[in-house]
Amino acid sequence: MKVFLSGFGNVGQGFMETTVIKKDLITKLVGEEVTFAGVVDSTTYYADPREVCSFCALGNKASTGKVGHSARGGKSVIDIMSECEFDVLIETGPTNVDDGGEGLANIRWALEHGKDVITVNKGPLALDFANLRKLAEEHGCILRYEGSVGGAMPIINLCNDSLAGVRIKSIQGIFNGTCNYVLSRMDSGLPLEQALKEAQQLGYAETDPTYDIEGYDTASKVVILANSVFGRDVTFKDVSVCGISSVTEEAVAMAAEENMVIRLIGEVSNTKLEVSPRLIPKGHPLSLSGTLNTALIETDFSGPITVTGRGAGRKETASAILSDLIAIARQRKSA
Amino acid sequence: MKVFLSGFGNVGQGFMETTVIKKDLITKLVGEEVTFAGVVDSTTYYADPREVCSFCALGNKASTGKVGHSARGGKSVIDIMSECEFDVLIETGPTNVDDGGEGLANIRWALEHGKDVITVNKGPLALDFANLRKLAEEHGCILRYEGSVGGAMPIINLCNDSLAGVRIKSIQGIFNGTCNYVLSRMDSGLPLEQALKEAQQLGYAETDPTYDIEGYDTASKVVILANSVFGRDVTFKDVSVCGISSVTEEAVAMAAEENMVIRLIGEVSNTKLEVSPRLIPKGHPLSLSGTLNTALIETDFSGPITVTGRGAGRKETASAILSDLIAIARQRKSA
Repeated sequence: MKVFLSGFGNVGQGFMETTVIKKDLITKLVGEEVTFAGVVDSTTYYADPREVCSFCALGNKASTGKVGHSARGGKSVIDIMSECEFDVLIETGPTNVDDGGEGLANIRWALEHGKDVITVNKGPLALDFANLRKLAEEHGCILRYEGSVGGAMPIINLCNDSLAGVRIKSIQGIFNGTCNYVLSRMDSGLPLEQALKEAQQLGYAETDPTYDIEGYDTASKVVILANSVFGRDVTFKDVSVCGISSVTEEAVAMAAEENMVIRLIGEVSNTKLEVSPRLIPKGHPLSLSGTLNTALIETDFSGPITVTGRGAGRKETASAILSDLIAIARQRKSA
Repeated sequence: MKVFLSGFGNVGQGFMETTVIKKDLITKLVGEEVTFAGVVDSTTYYADPREVCSFCALGNKASTGKVGHSARGGKSVIDIMSECEFDVLIETGPTNVDDGGEGLANIRWALEHGKDVITVNKGPLALDFANLRKLAEEHGCILRYEGSVGGAMPIINLCNDSLAGVRIKSIQGIFNGTCNYVLSRMDSGLPLEQALKEAQQLGYAETDPTYDIEGYDTASKVVILANSVFGRDVTFKDVSVCGISSVTEEAVAMAAEENMVIRLIGEVSNTKLEVSPRLIPKGHPLSLSGTLNTALIETDFSGPITVTGRGAGRKETASAILSDLIAIARQRKSA
């Protein structure tokens, strides 16, 4: 099985590392060796018709910040993919929720050319899900994206496969570890700015935390769940979004007096599509503190099902990609 | 898709009801209509070469306590299966952890005759898993059993499919709602006998609660997880089991002073296979109160993943069976 890896940041490198560390196990689970036909980062690429040497790619990146000796120059990822033979595109490039960016173009191209696709890049899914699903169907390709929501917390494949027998009425969840860390620290009396600074120092928040704090990250996850689990046809713009920047120390203190906490909750159902800070009773599954993600899945016949796990991280998201890759291999094998 | 239903108690009836209520959805998800070729309860059966009328079967059972007009007489389930044409055996008969009982014989026969099997009957899985897996492989059959552990709480397919990319290091969980209800009530100061009586009045505990209270039910679930998730080859007898009958009010009170609760925990890893009451800090995922089931899955690259759901119930277990049936249909379709 030949993989083309688009994006070689934290998650892309984490995935390649995982394939090195778990080589034997993966070969067994996939039924054949998994090799890389090409790897692209923002300025360079490394392609080899036999196979990319993972040690070299990771070593190059660590020592020079670049994956390959070939500068991309004017080449797009599509130009480079065109020169490679591979089975599966793994898209880990930067999320862009304005127009989907290069990631969206890459995924479209791959599906149109009969490649299966795994993406953890949320932009394309949040903006153009219906078309991507249609493209995949038309070309007999598999499109998977477990790592795009909740990182290592299983949610998409859980809902679509393990819970195939129930109707899911709604999903409410904490889908952004940065916001949840900040709100958890505010429970201890810290003001938002200070909690945020702490999150930045610990590496939980970006230098520009707007995307997380204003709820946009949660919103893109809610859109992905709406499209993939509820079969809706919505985009980023359809979500009613309110982030946590206006949550005050006073509001948190008042909540605490009522034995409540404030959490940024994403909610999706057949009629709802919302991100907002909410009052949650202490002890409720959604009152979770820290950086974990959690989802409360309301079903028709099975009652509520809760799942909790790490929402981000290099190895964690890589593991989600790997689960998708194994699923593709199994499906291709039985086909 | 033609189903043979062995066992027509709470779960068997619940499954048939579900197929009636969700007929259109199931037809869509399975890709064809699901019909019953035969249904057997402890004393009667109802088989029809075209199809069993679900309304009649459920009506008969409700009004007379018997599913069919034909008395089984000396007929075994196997005798009746032999006379029917079907694709999938759904085994919902009573659990027997001494020798597996008729359920084990039924599953063996079905696999040997090329039928796929879904079982929520734990006995056969706890006693003879390795052989059943081998039989299924030899005859190209699918054997699934999501409902045998945790009812509506997804765990087996979650571990084997959604988490295929990670190595699971251990699973610790609350797998018996009866014990957890009793222990939760003891947290409020009730003595065990009174908590148990309350559980019986509420229908959470059997008239003879030994199987639950002594940890045997949890033990059979731990064995199923060991065999199916960890690839071990163990049986019921290999589990170190201690139930909750010796948990005293004093022990619960002492735990509370240390901000702990006592919970009956099943634990399985590559080296462990244990059921015992344990001290759990309040607020820990395993300190859950009430009748829910929960599992804490420790993984190599994805950290801890927690899942919680209803561990039993008519519709809940029926939904788990239905998810397995859909999975079989998908696998057969892509094959």
